[in-house]
Amino acid sequence: MKRRLVVAVIGAGEAPRAVCKLAIALGREIARRGAVLLNGGRAGVMESAAAGARKEGGHTIGILPGHDRRDANRHIEFAIATGIGEARNAVIVASADAVIALAGEGGTLAEIGFAKKFGKPIVALDSWPEIGGLRRAGSPVDAVALALRLAKSSSRRRK
Amino acid sequence: MKRRLVVAVIGAGEAPRAVCKLAIALGREIARRGAVLLNGGRAGVMESAAAGARKEGGHTIGILPGHDRRDANRHIEFAIATGIGEARNAVIVASADAVIALAGEGGTLAEIGFAKKFGKPIVALDSWPEIGGLRRAGSPVDAVALALRLAKSSSRRRK
Amino acid sequence: MKRRLVVAVIGAGEAPRAVCKLAIALGREIARRGAVLLNGGRAGVMESAAAGARKEGGHTIGILPGHDRRDANRHIEFAIATGIGEARNAVIVASADAVIALAGEGGTLAEIGFAKKFGKPIVALDSWPEIGGLRRAGSPVDAVALALRLAKSSSRRRK
Amino acid sequence: MKRRLVVAVIGAGEAPRAVCKLAIALGREIARRGAVLLNGGRAGVMESAAAGARKEGGHTIGILPGHDRRDANRHIEFAIATGIGEARNAVIVASADAVIALAGEGGTLAEIGFAKKFGKPIVALDSWPEIGGLRRAGSPVDAVALALRLAKSSSRRRK
Repeated sequence: MKRRLVVAVIGAGEAPRAVCKLAIALGREIARRGAVLLNGGRAGVMESAAAGARKEGGHTIGILPGHDRRDANRHIEFAIATGIGEARNAVIVASADAVIALAGEGGTLAEIGFAKKFGKPIVALDSWPEIGGLRRAGSPVDAVALALRLAKSSSRRRK
Repeated sequence: MKRRLVVAVIGAGEAPRAVCKLAIALGREIARRGAVLLNGGRAGVMESAAAGARKEGGHTIGILPGHDRRDANRHIEFAIATGIGEARNAVIVASADAVIALAGEGGTLAEIGFAKKFGKPIVALDSWPEIGGLRRAGSPVDAVALALRLAKSSSRRRK
Repeated sequence: MKRRLVVAVIGAGEAPRAVCKLAIALGREIARRGAVLLNGGRAGVMESAAAGARKEGGHTIGILPGHDRRDANRHIEFAIATGIGEARNAVIVASADAVIALAGEGGTLAEIGFAKKFGKPIVALDSWPEIGGLRRAGSPVDAVALALRLAKSSSRRRK
Repeated sequence: MKRRLVVAVIGAGEAPRAVCKLAIALGREIARRGAVLLNGGRAGVMESAAAGARKEGGHTIGILPGHDRRDANRHIEFAIATGIGEARNAVIVASADAVIALAGEGGTLAEIGFAKKFGKPIVALDSWPEIGGLRRAGSPVDAVALALRLAKSSSRRRK
């Protein structure tokens, strides 16, 4: 079985409407392109991205901090209840082929740090101008296209 | 979205053929009943159970110890690369509604311990006679039926 | 700096008085022998063993499940707030040179499983007769002597 | 027993000499002030800070990514072998009362993200000008004084 590419969308658990709209668009585009959406499984950016992906029939995976799968938002198809708290941010990044970052706070920053550490491609969309070494995209469609292209070439390098 | 029930099949990474045959039968039955198979994503019991589930078109999730999703066996549809080593055994148990145990070693014993700690239903099949407090089944079909019944009544209790 | 040997004492968080007395005696003996006591940092066996070790001026380390170091019992000198929940049981075992097991429940069983998985020496004291492959001791003094001897020879083998 | 304050010094595992000199000075000052030095237990900033603290007779704790305590640098008195890989960065931050950041890369950035998430005081010394919301210090002595003051007032608030 050829496994589908996995794209993590990271960002604030409490996000303004404009950021959530970007997240929905990212989720839709990830699903349209046949990739799996993965994230932290909770509210805000995580819920919006999952909702978008499900609208297009895509698979969604949520990596939760707690023990209870019922804490996942209702657009998460497969809820992993890690029980390891915020350390689950490392799991989100390690399990993705590429990461797309929206505006966020400390948790998102930790995920960006892990993506750098693990050498995962990161695409920032309207966010994190202060952090160097990220790729930038101007729209959700461009962000997903860039993330998938980087994911493919980085997985080719590892072979 | 109503989330499907998730059943973890646990057991040795290097297992004799008879145990692997039980694992295949468990995987098939879990998929036939519409549940998701979850396990540690590697070889032995984990590979056999996933192969069985895929044969029936079921979903399979592997919770890997390392950072590289390519370490998952080829029957794992969704590979979570936790990078947290053997501590991922706690994640496997926490993410399942019920656990079915086959013969195994230390890692399987750790998972049984966590299932007791987390109050998850555990069904032992031809295994672990020395451990008290487990439910017993005489065949793969019975084991899955019992696991799903216990999972449903335990999730009802939590509501 | 030559690092001291570390002995984990594992057992129930809610333990009867007789088991706590064994834990105190184990803690005292570990400290007298110049080793460090490590455990889960909470109540019951964990608190008693730490109290014993501190009475003899030994060092005590508690590996907590939560984020708050103030959850450690008052005999823990160095409290590690892992925030990774019960998965911290793997950390307790990985960080010890040898494990001494008293009576316990699921969490203790998970730790015994990890000790087997990691190849750490395990000495059972008045406990776990149903689990094969453990070493047995008849008294706290004997248990500590055996644990330290096994720890030394196992660390010699790894060199 | 009143537990000592714990200060984490974070920064690059491969650091230029000037950064290592700052780390040594931080370690010395942390020990002189009676606090415990905690970090990731490996090379670079981690080794230098631990060396400084030991020179002044302070306690040092290393939270290692791997399973083997012998991977700790030789100035680590208490080595915790988490086995949870880079997710251990969350444990480092959660276990400290305050964090002092030197120059670093992705791993350090992840720790800064967790410190923000967990509401831990962070003092940056000659580093991370691009990250908002950190406190700044002009010298190792000032950094430690500020970190301890923030740690005390934040632990007072939690009571």
